[in-house]
Amino acid sequence: MQAIWDFFKNDRYAKHSGIELLEIGAGRAKARMTIADAHLNGVSLVHGGAIFTLADLVFAAASNSYGTVAVAINASIWFVKAAREGTLYAEGVETSRNPKLATYSIKVTDEAGETVALFEGMVYRKKDPIGPPARE
Amino acid sequence: MQAIWDFFKNDRYAKHSGIELLEIGAGRAKARMTIADAHLNGVSLVHGGAIFTLADLVFAAASNSYGTVAVAINASIWFVKAAREGTLYAEGVETSRNPKLATYSIKVTDEAGETVALFEGMVYRKKDPIGPPARE
Amino acid sequence: MQAIWDFFKNDRYAKHSGIELLEIGAGRAKARMTIADAHLNGVSLVHGGAIFTLADLVFAAASNSYGTVAVAINASIWFVKAAREGTLYAEGVETSRNPKLATYSIKVTDEAGETVALFEGMVYRKKDPIGPPARE
Amino acid sequence: MQAIWDFFKNDRYAKHSGIELLEIGAGRAKARMTIADAHLNGVSLVHGGAIFTLADLVFAAASNSYGTVAVAINASIWFVKAAREGTLYAEGVETSRNPKLATYSIKVTDEAGETVALFEGMVYRKKDPIGPPARE
Repeated sequence: MQAIWDFFKNDRYAKHSGIELLEIGAGRAKARMTIADAHLNGVSLVHGGAIFTLADLVFAAASNSYGTVAVAINASIWFVKAAREGTLYAEGVETSRNPKLATYSIKVTDEAGETVALFEGMVYRKKDPIGPPARE
Repeated sequence: MQAIWDFFKNDRYAKHSGIELLEIGAGRAKARMTIADAHLNGVSLVHGGAIFTLADLVFAAASNSYGTVAVAINASIWFVKAAREGTLYAEGVETSRNPKLATYSIKVTDEAGETVALFEGMVYRKKDPIGPPARE
Repeated sequence: MQAIWDFFKNDRYAKHSGIELLEIGAGRAKARMTIADAHLNGVSLVHGGAIFTLADLVFAAASNSYGTVAVAINASIWFVKAAREGTLYAEGVETSRNPKLATYSIKVTDEAGETVALFEGMVYRKKDPIGPPARE
Repeated sequence: MQAIWDFFKNDRYAKHSGIELLEIGAGRAKARMTIADAHLNGVSLVHGGAIFTLADLVFAAASNSYGTVAVAINASIWFVKAAREGTLYAEGVETSRNPKLATYSIKVTDEAGETVALFEGMVYRKKDPIGPPARE
């Protein structure tokens, strides 16, 4: 499990976006993002890209949780409530898995526990173990 | 059209992500993102969230190009080629529009012109004109 | 609730596809489809269109369960296991709802309880009550 | 190419749904469905499942057009205009392809040429040649 935590510690866009990974378990993960000015769009709401990135990190952590590399091939997101301040949380669970493909369902909620976005994504599962970054 | 450019000039997450809007026309837009260390994930590839954010900005610009507010309600993305350096471009066109809903197709390409991701999104169209940010 | 059952009794494509609605509750529904030769594709597996149609009926029933008309505007489906015989079940729950939009998550399973497909859809909610078919 | 036409001639759900494949080329295909009573839902509009099935057949034909088996793993559809009579057409083109994955964009239009639905799907590409149905 340490290799996976190291892997995500090295995720520069997540760090740049102020996203913090909270938990990784078998096929599941959780993260949070405290809303700052840098997350806002032109009308001062949290940018859809920031919400997607938060969910995407959980998607990556949950799908790589078995220690072998999983590559995101598709994701769909539904934006159901605008967010403008406070902390957002994303929590994801595995919804299917076979040797080559797996799917994950991630929910993004606000501090009041209300749903901000729903995200469903599919990965292609490789045989390679997660190790030190391939190129540094 | 100036109001729309101002609107996107005020998009802090796009700016924070190094995304530059290049063109806005009726139902279409174009943007670019020069890959930097801050865009990379744990294996030094461009993070899916950064690619989504680039496409999402084009989606927002194209759908708001008529001068009335359009709110993103759904998007699907397919990641088809990894990217690690150089500049990425996103270009979007409108694929349908009625008074309440519209859809946009955005393609993200690399410097060699190869497709990195495909994005299709739907907006809910309000009657409100795009003006100065509602809350500042 | 009777109006909704009548509405679905009048669904000719569901009937033509051998789909039977089993339950409708507030924001949820359940249906089944016993696989027949007419559901198969060129390699004798259940056609993706038949699986989608089964999930789509549950989506429609769940989203129209409040007695006002909900119109499907988008759906994504992930096919995770092939099916060739027996009975398929689809069960759906509401994952978000505001006055204008709502989302539903539908899971299609086989007799062994294994997941065949995952479906997530969004509706636009009208104010019109569900009544006798508008045009007959 | 003959093997592919035979493959689709054997597609029972497409036939049951009154769908006729018109063209198959490298990475592209076209089909039509003349609306009949059996395609309608409870409010006498063409059922979303029937529209999906029409698009899905084109998706399958286009993605199997190279003579090796391609399996649908995901699709998203946006319903943008209701249909109630006449003939619907679906036309699809390849939007990306690598050795393992490919994506296709399918547009469903009515007789007036107006867009009824947009469909984007991804397949997993196997090495197996398309031959006589594996199990009969």
